[in-house]
Amino acid sequence: MRSTTHTDLVDETIALLDGLRARRPLVHCLTNQVVKAFTANTLLAIGAAPAMVEHPAEADEFAAMADALLVNVGTLDEAQMGAMRRAIPSANRAGKPWVLDPVAVGPLSLRTRFAREIVELRPAMVRGNASEILALAGQVGRGRGVESGDSPEAARDAARELAARTGAAVLVSGAVDFIVGEGREAGVANGHILMTRVTGVGCAMGAIAAACLPVAGSRFAAAVATAVLLGIAGDLAAERTQRPGSFQIALLDALDELDGAIVRRRARIVAP
Amino acid sequence: MRSTTHTDLVDETIALLDGLRARRPLVHCLTNQVVKAFTANTLLAIGAAPAMVEHPAEADEFAAMADALLVNVGTLDEAQMGAMRRAIPSANRAGKPWVLDPVAVGPLSLRTRFAREIVELRPAMVRGNASEILALAGQVGRGRGVESGDSPEAARDAARELAARTGAAVLVSGAVDFIVGEGREAGVANGHILMTRVTGVGCAMGAIAAACLPVAGSRFAAAVATAVLLGIAGDLAAERTQRPGSFQIALLDALDELDGAIVRRRARIVAP
Amino acid sequence: MRSTTHTDLVDETIALLDGLRARRPLVHCLTNQVVKAFTANTLLAIGAAPAMVEHPAEADEFAAMADALLVNVGTLDEAQMGAMRRAIPSANRAGKPWVLDPVAVGPLSLRTRFAREIVELRPAMVRGNASEILALAGQVGRGRGVESGDSPEAARDAARELAARTGAAVLVSGAVDFIVGEGREAGVANGHILMTRVTGVGCAMGAIAAACLPVAGSRFAAAVATAVLLGIAGDLAAERTQRPGSFQIALLDALDELDGAIVRRRARIVAP
Repeated sequence: MRSTTHTDLVDETIALLDGLRARRPLVHCLTNQVVKAFTANTLLAIGAAPAMVEHPAEADEFAAMADALLVNVGTLDEAQMGAMRRAIPSANRAGKPWVLDPVAVGPLSLRTRFAREIVELRPAMVRGNASEILALAGQVGRGRGVESGDSPEAARDAARELAARTGAAVLVSGAVDFIVGEGREAGVANGHILMTRVTGVGCAMGAIAAACLPVAGSRFAAAVATAVLLGIAGDLAAERTQRPGSFQIALLDALDELDGAIVRRRARIVAP
Repeated sequence: MRSTTHTDLVDETIALLDGLRARRPLVHCLTNQVVKAFTANTLLAIGAAPAMVEHPAEADEFAAMADALLVNVGTLDEAQMGAMRRAIPSANRAGKPWVLDPVAVGPLSLRTRFAREIVELRPAMVRGNASEILALAGQVGRGRGVESGDSPEAARDAARELAARTGAAVLVSGAVDFIVGEGREAGVANGHILMTRVTGVGCAMGAIAAACLPVAGSRFAAAVATAVLLGIAGDLAAERTQRPGSFQIALLDALDELDGAIVRRRARIVAP
Repeated sequence: MRSTTHTDLVDETIALLDGLRARRPLVHCLTNQVVKAFTANTLLAIGAAPAMVEHPAEADEFAAMADALLVNVGTLDEAQMGAMRRAIPSANRAGKPWVLDPVAVGPLSLRTRFAREIVELRPAMVRGNASEILALAGQVGRGRGVESGDSPEAARDAARELAARTGAAVLVSGAVDFIVGEGREAGVANGHILMTRVTGVGCAMGAIAAACLPVAGSRFAAAVATAVLLGIAGDLAAERTQRPGSFQIALLDALDELDGAIVRRRARIVAP
């Protein structure tokens, strides 16, 4: 593994945040029905622009126009699978990065087959919890619904294998997020347990990843920035409230509030 | 009707809340498109775990894995009706309780036929407003869209008939909720009119019902607990704000805040 | 253009708001997947009643029962296009007004063709940003996703042409909203840039328009009232918070808080 100092990664994250606010990437979200509004609000809060375009014909057309594509399999239906099968090659042809979020892959067989099929189409990033990453890599996890039954540590080898085989950066979210890609590894210790008490925070991480990729120096740097930026926003929000309703609102406010000084003071990039 | 003291029902509700937090039931929600996020956040706030799995093949598979199933007909489409027709028998075979929420049954003919068809598949609970319960039982209510044009009192006989015929506990929501099942009846006077100014609070009651059933001593106790817990959360929230936007957030915070002492102090179980 | 004093329009807006609270119009929303919950909460907050009924058979039936219909093309799929094709003629036959919101029309070809097809079915109002109105009228705008790349000024002639040809009032939202219809024109300078940082605020404007039409003296007055009422709510909310999460909540609270005195004090109707 190549060495990267944590200071370098913090600098890259700050530059990326500035670039994101300057360029305002347009993120095409093919995501699940539960989190569409929260995902859109998360992207708007951090400074990106969301668009959910679901008709297969339009998804094909739009994936080439947007700056990045998010593919989240949380509530797959036949029409949406069709949209994903057209949008991904369209994004690839146009040179636009795409993110795979394999929600609840493992216990459910249809989405597990589908996610294993599309991960071969070369996503720039895969974002999942430990159980999802284990299952995507062909191992048996202990996920229950959308929640992980495994620790990020347990999924490290699966993440490394996925990253090496597909070329994607892999972001395994958990108490300490684990990131691997392009021969580098890092841990991110930002974030708060309240983030698991609001629906869609994990899915929002996939969306932020898609927003970071077009302005990042590398896939690995985008994955680290994603974990750091959302994690710091969670830390800030948890300082203001300990209840899940108001936490959801405080998290959006905190994403808007993020700046270079806050990132420098609060980023907790650790040895993986 | 068998006599149950109100103190017994309060004790049962407190025990159920403790059991819910300890076991964290996984609730499979087949619900309407408007309320998916709020339903998920409601379940997370009270201490349960939500999952929305809609593809017919996956809904079949997941209904057997989850602890309970919610079937809400608010925005039926063909695919979702297919998912419900597969998930309900799967839940029944696996011995998992399911809740029927007959949203807007009455004025709309397709969902009325569908709800009358599936209520024969033995739900553990039916949760509706007075107009919906009247219509589900084959009588003519005065509902308009998702709102009741009838008082809970007007729907009592229809609720009793439904409960006797299907074996379900029936929860008729209103200013005073009416609950009947397993030969018992109760009223619950908790709750606040602001709960009708936020979309999805009625639907969230169906989801909480599904979360209560796997940890309840009886269907009747689960229905009483559902009305008491959501109603007290509404009372608490209304003490903090009188505006509908902030009420929505305060309601989620209050669901998280609920504990045995609050329930004992505030539960208003009354003669039906 | 016929002359209307701004004082007259403020009086009409206040009377309309009172009428809306008294009659509580039921609005049938065929809208996009991202904004359904926020749209419903917006309508509840201002004093109307929302219902989302999407199955083509039910959409036909319900459009005749509701007081007004909203058609928003933000996330079209085949089933929803079918529902719209049945609901619009049903509303027309029943004499119920309907609103077209041509979200992201222009860059995406399927929805552009569809919106140009249905605008011929005589909506009472069209609500869009400048790029969408330009594209709907057959001109080339510079929209990107759901955002306008054109100023409301650039879309004036397109809006006038649409209004003259279809009979609809046309509301072009922007920093100063432009309204044209029935031979009259006005500008509305209420509103705040934070409204673009919350998903669904533009779509909520279409829903409020649908709620205003059944209680308005004219289509033009309904369009002016829509822009004034939502704009003032945005002004109030922005005085309370500058962050997008809490702004979303403050906006809903402010819609509930609106009354005649606030409207009289704050309405900024200007020369177009």
